[in-house]
Amino acid sequence: MNFASDGVAYCAPEIMARIVADNPVTTAVFDADEITAALKERIEAMFESEVDIFTVATGSASNSLALAAMTQPYGAILSHVEAHIQTDECGAPEMITGGAKLIGLPGEHGKIDAATLEEALKHSRFGFTHSVQPQALSLSQITEAGTVYTPDEMADLCRIAKSYGLKVHVDGARFANALAALVCSPAELSWKAGVDILSLGATKNGAIAAEVIIVFDRSLSERLRYMRKRSGHMIAKNRLLALQLDTYLTDDLWLRNARHANDMGRALESVLLRAPDIRLVHPRQANELFLVMPDDVLERMRKGGIKMYENWRTYPLRHHRMATSFATTPQDIDRVAAILGV
Amino acid sequence: MNFASDGVAYCAPEIMARIVADNPVTTAVFDADEITAALKERIEAMFESEVDIFTVATGSASNSLALAAMTQPYGAILSHVEAHIQTDECGAPEMITGGAKLIGLPGEHGKIDAATLEEALKHSRFGFTHSVQPQALSLSQITEAGTVYTPDEMADLCRIAKSYGLKVHVDGARFANALAALVCSPAELSWKAGVDILSLGATKNGAIAAEVIIVFDRSLSERLRYMRKRSGHMIAKNRLLALQLDTYLTDDLWLRNARHANDMGRALESVLLRAPDIRLVHPRQANELFLVMPDDVLERMRKGGIKMYENWRTYPLRHHRMATSFATTPQDIDRVAAILGV
Amino acid sequence: MNFASDGVAYCAPEIMARIVADNPVTTAVFDADEITAALKERIEAMFESEVDIFTVATGSASNSLALAAMTQPYGAILSHVEAHIQTDECGAPEMITGGAKLIGLPGEHGKIDAATLEEALKHSRFGFTHSVQPQALSLSQITEAGTVYTPDEMADLCRIAKSYGLKVHVDGARFANALAALVCSPAELSWKAGVDILSLGATKNGAIAAEVIIVFDRSLSERLRYMRKRSGHMIAKNRLLALQLDTYLTDDLWLRNARHANDMGRALESVLLRAPDIRLVHPRQANELFLVMPDDVLERMRKGGIKMYENWRTYPLRHHRMATSFATTPQDIDRVAAILGV
Amino acid sequence: MNFASDGVAYCAPEIMARIVADNPVTTAVFDADEITAALKERIEAMFESEVDIFTVATGSASNSLALAAMTQPYGAILSHVEAHIQTDECGAPEMITGGAKLIGLPGEHGKIDAATLEEALKHSRFGFTHSVQPQALSLSQITEAGTVYTPDEMADLCRIAKSYGLKVHVDGARFANALAALVCSPAELSWKAGVDILSLGATKNGAIAAEVIIVFDRSLSERLRYMRKRSGHMIAKNRLLALQLDTYLTDDLWLRNARHANDMGRALESVLLRAPDIRLVHPRQANELFLVMPDDVLERMRKGGIKMYENWRTYPLRHHRMATSFATTPQDIDRVAAILGV
Repeated sequence: MNFASDGVAYCAPEIMARIVADNPVTTAVFDADEITAALKERIEAMFESEVDIFTVATGSASNSLALAAMTQPYGAILSHVEAHIQTDECGAPEMITGGAKLIGLPGEHGKIDAATLEEALKHSRFGFTHSVQPQALSLSQITEAGTVYTPDEMADLCRIAKSYGLKVHVDGARFANALAALVCSPAELSWKAGVDILSLGATKNGAIAAEVIIVFDRSLSERLRYMRKRSGHMIAKNRLLALQLDTYLTDDLWLRNARHANDMGRALESVLLRAPDIRLVHPRQANELFLVMPDDVLERMRKGGIKMYENWRTYPLRHHRMATSFATTPQDIDRVAAILGV
Repeated sequence: MNFASDGVAYCAPEIMARIVADNPVTTAVFDADEITAALKERIEAMFESEVDIFTVATGSASNSLALAAMTQPYGAILSHVEAHIQTDECGAPEMITGGAKLIGLPGEHGKIDAATLEEALKHSRFGFTHSVQPQALSLSQITEAGTVYTPDEMADLCRIAKSYGLKVHVDGARFANALAALVCSPAELSWKAGVDILSLGATKNGAIAAEVIIVFDRSLSERLRYMRKRSGHMIAKNRLLALQLDTYLTDDLWLRNARHANDMGRALESVLLRAPDIRLVHPRQANELFLVMPDDVLERMRKGGIKMYENWRTYPLRHHRMATSFATTPQDIDRVAAILGV
Repeated sequence: MNFASDGVAYCAPEIMARIVADNPVTTAVFDADEITAALKERIEAMFESEVDIFTVATGSASNSLALAAMTQPYGAILSHVEAHIQTDECGAPEMITGGAKLIGLPGEHGKIDAATLEEALKHSRFGFTHSVQPQALSLSQITEAGTVYTPDEMADLCRIAKSYGLKVHVDGARFANALAALVCSPAELSWKAGVDILSLGATKNGAIAAEVIIVFDRSLSERLRYMRKRSGHMIAKNRLLALQLDTYLTDDLWLRNARHANDMGRALESVLLRAPDIRLVHPRQANELFLVMPDDVLERMRKGGIKMYENWRTYPLRHHRMATSFATTPQDIDRVAAILGV
Repeated sequence: MNFASDGVAYCAPEIMARIVADNPVTTAVFDADEITAALKERIEAMFESEVDIFTVATGSASNSLALAAMTQPYGAILSHVEAHIQTDECGAPEMITGGAKLIGLPGEHGKIDAATLEEALKHSRFGFTHSVQPQALSLSQITEAGTVYTPDEMADLCRIAKSYGLKVHVDGARFANALAALVCSPAELSWKAGVDILSLGATKNGAIAAEVIIVFDRSLSERLRYMRKRSGHMIAKNRLLALQLDTYLTDDLWLRNARHANDMGRALESVLLRAPDIRLVHPRQANELFLVMPDDVLERMRKGGIKMYENWRTYPLRHHRMATSFATTPQDIDRVAAILGV
């Protein structure tokens, strides 16, 4: 049982079925295939907006390219200090933007609150030649601590950012998990709240490798178009990406998978909290759990074949991560319970 | 019938079968899966050398990352003036290297000859602070004009490059087509000739999206490891790339596909040359043909459903490209003959 | 006698006098001093236009920053293949632009002609995602071969560039020498001809270290402002640069110096052409001469204490450069005549 | 009386005298002049070490180039969170390094302490592909809060940095002020403590515009040589920089100027602290004071013609900066006393 990441779940059956079924002898190259075109239409319908889309194979590419479309090299990107773009992409946003600066904001449980953002922007030196210029806010949905921004929280943060002239990006690697945890539409959680570009992930929730940059502010698309190619992220047979995403967004697969993952997360939480020595570092709101546990409990889990992301953070508080996915089963959870004896 | 590119052929049956068969519930993330490990062993056996490998999803990434591993930002990369890295990657090598300069060398039929390289290097201003410093030679195999370097030609060029301290990269997007056109081993066409990094392509010859950077000079691997991540090219579920490549290199699939493509190229050539008004711009040596033809012949082909890459170059001589692939059939060729009435 | 470069002449007496005279105890930092303000007004009056100005200490900075203001990282910059930005700045434009591509156009005697530019742009693949996008034309005035564009030639080239959406930059390291060789106003040789940014040099014609980027298309200034700082080119005590430039542009000093340099160039030409074995590679139009001469003549010059830039180019034709400056004297020319025995 | 910055003092008389005296008709270009050569020898003698030197005109260039010589694009640079490179160079280090990440460490009064550095490095994920790799430590001497590292503190920090494989850079914009505040040799405060590159400033302490990068670990020089040119920071008539620096280092001018500035700082401190409502935010150890004062006191100073750097920081504590320089006089201090009525 591998709970180290939701990314370990390989492929949703619906998506594999589509890969198998969609096997033409030849295909139009790059974005010219009919599935990419259909995907765009589907996204426009679901998000109730005209958009431009750019598919890529990795989340790092999706985030970095979106940010490069919004930010000059002398720009600054505000995000939570623990955001994935800050900590786990080996400086990809810095590279793709041409050296923009990532500024980390503090915030409990991975979330930026409105007052912190306002304070940071109020004290930013806009127009001061010697200082990088804040040009983008990047929000993670769900956050790197597994928590969820509500549409109102998103709208608040976007409103503040925009009042200072910033564009807003959402790292939506787990956007479906947020949607599944809330009662709102995709539009309400994106452009209606003020989001300019959404990096919508599928790879952690059913696809093997497929992400899509959804551009609501289409004035940003020109740069993106060339920067995607120039960074090596334009796939020759793009239909492979498009069909994964198209299936992902068909018949609510993304939400069904995410709901299942969240449900399994809730079930896992209830099992873990029955163990006297385990506690959560952040409230579980979707499919990720961040845990402090004694080393002997950790060892027992290991011996029982339970993998987690050990030492997710070692500083200032050492803790571990467990994540559930569309592929997690109630039996997997039962197994944890059995090992813990709860 | 789409002869515009060998890249239009979608997926070799053996590779699709493997994708279908290899469908685990969970997988180790990034490079830690067992298929990536097996792929490395297979490549070491086939190339008779210890290597490091880095899989990526696009040729642009493969070429640019390889070059970035060899070149400082103040470096210069020598290649044929018509090389793909020069003309069709929207400046990807410039971006990933941090702004190195690509210097285009002339040469008949897409090939650099030894005298031209020697002359260019002899007149390069090594050690002169005001000039970019030649640090890499990039050879395309097969070339952008569809021609093939022999192992001896490769060895000659590598020897010259190395005598000036350059590293050698091969853009092997169609490396298998070269191997199939020659009688030599993979090693003879790479490290034994002096190649430091080979960007081995599979996407144009059977895979949907899979390329592998094979590093013979492993002192170059450290930079590559971080730069791949940092440019967003490290795939979370790398097994999807690895299994395509592993299948590609199993049971000679790469060579069987390439031989077929080359054979179809030869057959297409013989049909086309029977038409009085069509002539080749470059000698066909593998699976690509570059053609001058009257517009009425072009129009007849169009009407007959034959697609080619029209206006491949418009300057100084307007011409078109036709390419054959593993998926081209004798019937496709016959259809061309029928349309041309030859 | 050092004829290797006009850059060897250290400082015009008027400028040194101003440096000595302008020695306040304290000064406003960066651009806030009164001399920088006066310089802007002076330039606006002389160029008959509102402008933004950005002083820098080197020509490489001046050219590269100007180009970065006009060009996206995926852009292409067209210039003569022998332009200084192409050959002698160690890739500075590539670095400062974030990796834009410099495309070299051929042309006799260092000049691009209208037909060549038109042809190059006509065959550029605008809007094609896989190709860098031409966004700037950079003209050198005088050219790297010592020749001069007339205002009409400039206007023609600008018109063509602009019809394709390009901005126009002039590398005016020796702009005064061009002005002195022509009968026209600074405005006619810059914005009236269609120039968007002029990198106006003073360092080769009287200043010790002072260049100014004159921005006619002020929509380009925002990027420039931050990029100058970010590249380390904003000088803390900018008055040192401003006072050199202000003096340079006062009482026609720039033109007087340039006329003298050009006159000395003409005198040197007439001496050299009296020697039977020396010939010019390019017509002399200002203060630079490019020469082929037998090695024994070269050796005689060396022994006589005449320095030139030997082996300016070794390929395809080996030749040398001699340049005159504001500091060259008729006696220096006589000395050359004496050595040559002409 | 302008106490906003020590950078407002224009030029030490000794340096102006040298500029006036050193006025040759011609000079060798770039680094080939005899003063640059003499400067190197002088520095080697004073620092008791073979070194390479690279002069530049700005501190931003000096810091950024030094860091670029030590750091890969995927590297991380550790410095105090308030360091000048972090806050006031508009992202210059990010640009020149090709996008390395600056990591800010906390620390009282602008200083990093050994435990904080050790902790940060211990929790850095060396060898983890997804994380930038710490490769450089940058220490400011004096710090951005006006405090001074002792040689022992420097040596401790260097030892820790080096035990993790990092190189050490010192931003010595005010290195002379530190030397003057301590009892040690230049060598003890640089390479003997473990420093690999020192960015030695002169511009704030007597020169108009002159900084020198002193490379103790000469394996780092090759990159620096080309990167300086490529970033536009190689000055054509380098003697102007070299003669400022050479004079600066002659007859203890740098130390005399710095001692005077520090003495004036001490005198200013004693005046200010006599005012009941003014307090220091950081201990004054050299020539900079960071002050909290009531707005009416600030207003009184303004009206009395005393300029300071108002609102140096507004967050979390609003405070102002006053700096003294080689040009500050006892009368200037008396004037402050008179205005404050103390």
